[in-house]
Amino acid sequence: MNSKTGTKERIIQASAYLFQIQGYHATGLNQIIKESGAPRGSVYHHFPNGKEELAIAAIKHTGRCVEKQIQNSMTQFADPVEAIQHFIHVTAEQFNDPQNIEGVPVGLLAGETALINETLRCTCVEVFKQWTDVFAEKFLQHGFEQEEAEKLGMTINSMIEGGIMFSLAHKNKEPLLLISKQVPYLVRNRG
Amino acid sequence: MNSKTGTKERIIQASAYLFQIQGYHATGLNQIIKESGAPRGSVYHHFPNGKEELAIAAIKHTGRCVEKQIQNSMTQFADPVEAIQHFIHVTAEQFNDPQNIEGVPVGLLAGETALINETLRCTCVEVFKQWTDVFAEKFLQHGFEQEEAEKLGMTINSMIEGGIMFSLAHKNKEPLLLISKQVPYLVRNRG
Repeated sequence: MNSKTGTKERIIQASAYLFQIQGYHATGLNQIIKESGAPRGSVYHHFPNGKEELAIAAIKHTGRCVEKQIQNSMTQFADPVEAIQHFIHVTAEQFNDPQNIEGVPVGLLAGETALINETLRCTCVEVFKQWTDVFAEKFLQHGFEQEEAEKLGMTINSMIEGGIMFSLAHKNKEPLLLISKQVPYLVRNRG
Repeated sequence: MNSKTGTKERIIQASAYLFQIQGYHATGLNQIIKESGAPRGSVYHHFPNGKEELAIAAIKHTGRCVEKQIQNSMTQFADPVEAIQHFIHVTAEQFNDPQNIEGVPVGLLAGETALINETLRCTCVEVFKQWTDVFAEKFLQHGFEQEEAEKLGMTINSMIEGGIMFSLAHKNKEPLLLISKQVPYLVRNRG
């Protein structure tokens, strides 16, 4: 990583962190500059369109990180139920230290901005689709029909997002662990 | 309703509406005063502690509205699956006109404030518990054990919250309708 890439990455990570713990509207450009430790000029250089552009980069960054985590779980376990449960457990572990949760900002930003910022809303929808596709692909490999695989992928994704929101509200991992135990009912003995 | 109660209600409804479409941090006291049409003095009189107090009132107001909707669906249908599906469909109908969604603010405010405002976080948790309890009560009546009824209530609640978030992000009711179709898999043939 050269130092220029390093600075840009640092700015994106600082943005993702701040959007995550306090939301889009409560986060200001000055705070991002301070948190990243990057020179003000670098922030304006890499993100000339300001906060919205930073939010898009942060959502995409988080999207890729979570997609990789889902993919890792899907690869580690042949059985889709075990694979999904593993991913939920990995996600749940983050709630041992709620200040360091990855992946939450996408759901939050979607909720906070869906009705007032089309660009951010569409970026969130894209990222959700990437995650859903990874789940759907696993179901396809496991013999589900295309349409059923997509619907089930979307359901799992949305159940996990709800579980994350509840774990965040409760400040503990129990809601996510509970969700994990319901996965077999959704996936086995269908059709 | 006397005129004093009327003003207070109007302020709470305006707050709930604004928190819902743009979130907690983007909403200012002046905007609430303008939206409600109430005299500035009334807002300070009824809510001397300002925005946080207004948010608590808005969350509780939304909590009661949604609880009543859940209760209505549970009463209308003997079968818990049909009752839950009816409630999800009622919720989904609101996404025909996304500017008028009720109930979303609780999830949003929970996400936006969970890590930075304990009072709002606890109010959201209380409201979620009220909703979960109504679902759990229905499962209890239907012969489920206490613990299983509570867990299933929590799962349904969290799946619906995830579905609302996805419907909000997609600006249509499809994700919620999809969720509704998964309810039988979660509820039937358990244990």
